[in-house]
Amino acid sequence: MYTHIQLKDFVFKVFMKMGCPTEQAELASNTLISADLRGVDSHGVARLSGYVRLWEAGRINPNPKIEIVHETPSTAVVNGDAGLGLVVGPASMKIAMDKARNVGTGWVSVKNSNHFGIAGYHSMLALKEDMIGISMTNASPLVAPTWSKEQMLGTNPIAVAIPAGNEPPFVADFATATAANGKLEILQRKGGKAPTGWVQDKEGFSSTDPYELKNGGALLPLGSDREHGSHKGYCLGSIVDIFSAVLSGASYGPWAPPFVSFLPVADDMPGEGLGHFFGAMRIDAFQPKDHFKSHMDQWIKRFRSASAVDDQESVLVPGDPERIIEQERINTGIDLLKPVEDDLKSLAEKFEIIF
Amino acid sequence: MYTHIQLKDFVFKVFMKMGCPTEQAELASNTLISADLRGVDSHGVARLSGYVRLWEAGRINPNPKIEIVHETPSTAVVNGDAGLGLVVGPASMKIAMDKARNVGTGWVSVKNSNHFGIAGYHSMLALKEDMIGISMTNASPLVAPTWSKEQMLGTNPIAVAIPAGNEPPFVADFATATAANGKLEILQRKGGKAPTGWVQDKEGFSSTDPYELKNGGALLPLGSDREHGSHKGYCLGSIVDIFSAVLSGASYGPWAPPFVSFLPVADDMPGEGLGHFFGAMRIDAFQPKDHFKSHMDQWIKRFRSASAVDDQESVLVPGDPERIIEQERINTGIDLLKPVEDDLKSLAEKFEIIF
Repeated sequence: MYTHIQLKDFVFKVFMKMGCPTEQAELASNTLISADLRGVDSHGVARLSGYVRLWEAGRINPNPKIEIVHETPSTAVVNGDAGLGLVVGPASMKIAMDKARNVGTGWVSVKNSNHFGIAGYHSMLALKEDMIGISMTNASPLVAPTWSKEQMLGTNPIAVAIPAGNEPPFVADFATATAANGKLEILQRKGGKAPTGWVQDKEGFSSTDPYELKNGGALLPLGSDREHGSHKGYCLGSIVDIFSAVLSGASYGPWAPPFVSFLPVADDMPGEGLGHFFGAMRIDAFQPKDHFKSHMDQWIKRFRSASAVDDQESVLVPGDPERIIEQERINTGIDLLKPVEDDLKSLAEKFEIIF
Repeated sequence: MYTHIQLKDFVFKVFMKMGCPTEQAELASNTLISADLRGVDSHGVARLSGYVRLWEAGRINPNPKIEIVHETPSTAVVNGDAGLGLVVGPASMKIAMDKARNVGTGWVSVKNSNHFGIAGYHSMLALKEDMIGISMTNASPLVAPTWSKEQMLGTNPIAVAIPAGNEPPFVADFATATAANGKLEILQRKGGKAPTGWVQDKEGFSSTDPYELKNGGALLPLGSDREHGSHKGYCLGSIVDIFSAVLSGASYGPWAPPFVSFLPVADDMPGEGLGHFFGAMRIDAFQPKDHFKSHMDQWIKRFRSASAVDDQESVLVPGDPERIIEQERINTGIDLLKPVEDDLKSLAEKFEIIF
């Protein structure tokens, strides 16, 4: 069991060893640890060695010059200069919020970035400014469009954070695939079968084998099959891809650069690196703040008190589960799986730092 | 079989008889017929008598004063003055596009409106201005959140239209429920069973009875059940509800006004009427137009040529099916079901116009 402060401190030191400037190492380690705190274990310290390998392969620039390459009063395109998405993300979200302060909303499409951790973290940066925050990113292709057997889209998440008054904020953060790869990895460790509708084999037939993805199969878009709306999940994943990568000039669709360093980037990449998209909307650009917040409180309370199917499981509001886990983990610490712990230990050895 | 011009002309006359000003009757009939043309038969002339009944019940104002009640350079809140959503929608989308022309993007949240037809129509208005168009709306509650047995959200659709170059545009338009009510109505007529995952009974148990909704059951959010991501569909429907109704001051969640005139509006409505949300983003606020369009062409061609599961069914790009139907129906006309035809005939009789 580790405190989040111990883990964050270790991650900070690793990023410093990679050559990140202090401020960026600070930012990146906070972003990464937010995943472990919120219970999205697949996107936290478990990924640290992956970032290190990408840096070793020359695909992450530890000291990027993040800059606006085109802008209007409410928009910008940002070049992440191959930096850590964990740093490029918050920097770009800040630009969106600055624009929202001036003209009501701000929208930033980002190219030449890398994996940015959990989408929810970036969207939540807007909350303390009384803004609605939106974040999305494209990602390594793993998902097959409806009727296709080819991996064409990433799990391309969408996050939307909306401030409330006395109630905690509404925070939706979800992949546009039925189930993300992390869930298959859990089943691989347990030796279990995947539910029908998560994955298909390399011929495009439904499968319950959690290793199917490694054998040339694909994840399925939210909705699972045509009859249950997979074309809608395919639409959502496509919108995220286009807003994040075509609008910015990043690499899109099946050309999105892979997160794992042992897979090469495509020779014919149509753009630069991975793409993200961020939005910030000032709530007082629409309604007086207090008025909006009191209605959000009413919305949240009404949904939380919706009649439940099972008396033991009350209806949740988006953001509830992650907030509960975060509070627990702040209080009692974060338990790491043995392979993750070993991974961090070898990083400690490599960089000669204490873990 | 009717030509779309015949049908549009008839709808125009009905709206004139309701007391719409000529320009608004023109706008509303074009919006409505776009649904019949694009194959979304549930949202076209089949709904005309429903609008008439709402007007008779005093819930639709045929001559609304649509006005901006609050704004910033990139945002506005519009009061639809209880007008037809078919008119309030395009008027509000125009405001979003005007703002985008000035500052790059425009975002309009609308209160005090009514059913606006198909979401896709409004988003597509942006295409001819080389903008990305976004539209969404809340709607009468029919969908139960994950773990709930209560109808709390509408089928709350999202539409996103993105311009391309030589290729036709990308147009996604989908409800955030697994299947919309119109699909259950088709099964009711046919006497068939619904696939598992579309609907639940009034106790919250899975059902295949297409009449379940009328017996106190509910539609399920995109994803169908928790294991297949229904919490993601619930998030999406909630985001549409909050952007459309809480941001604007419309009535939200289970209080959204019902489309059918025989159901009363809630006594304790927290806002005014139905809500919509529109967005317009100038593509040259991000990239030079030609550059963006050539990459969209490449995106579309790559997805359309993605390896298909079945050689007979090639992979589609969002907007393909509706565009094909529209071309067919422009050429050969629109076939109406007998009940819809009878419905229009009684309207003709009521208003003493020729059908």
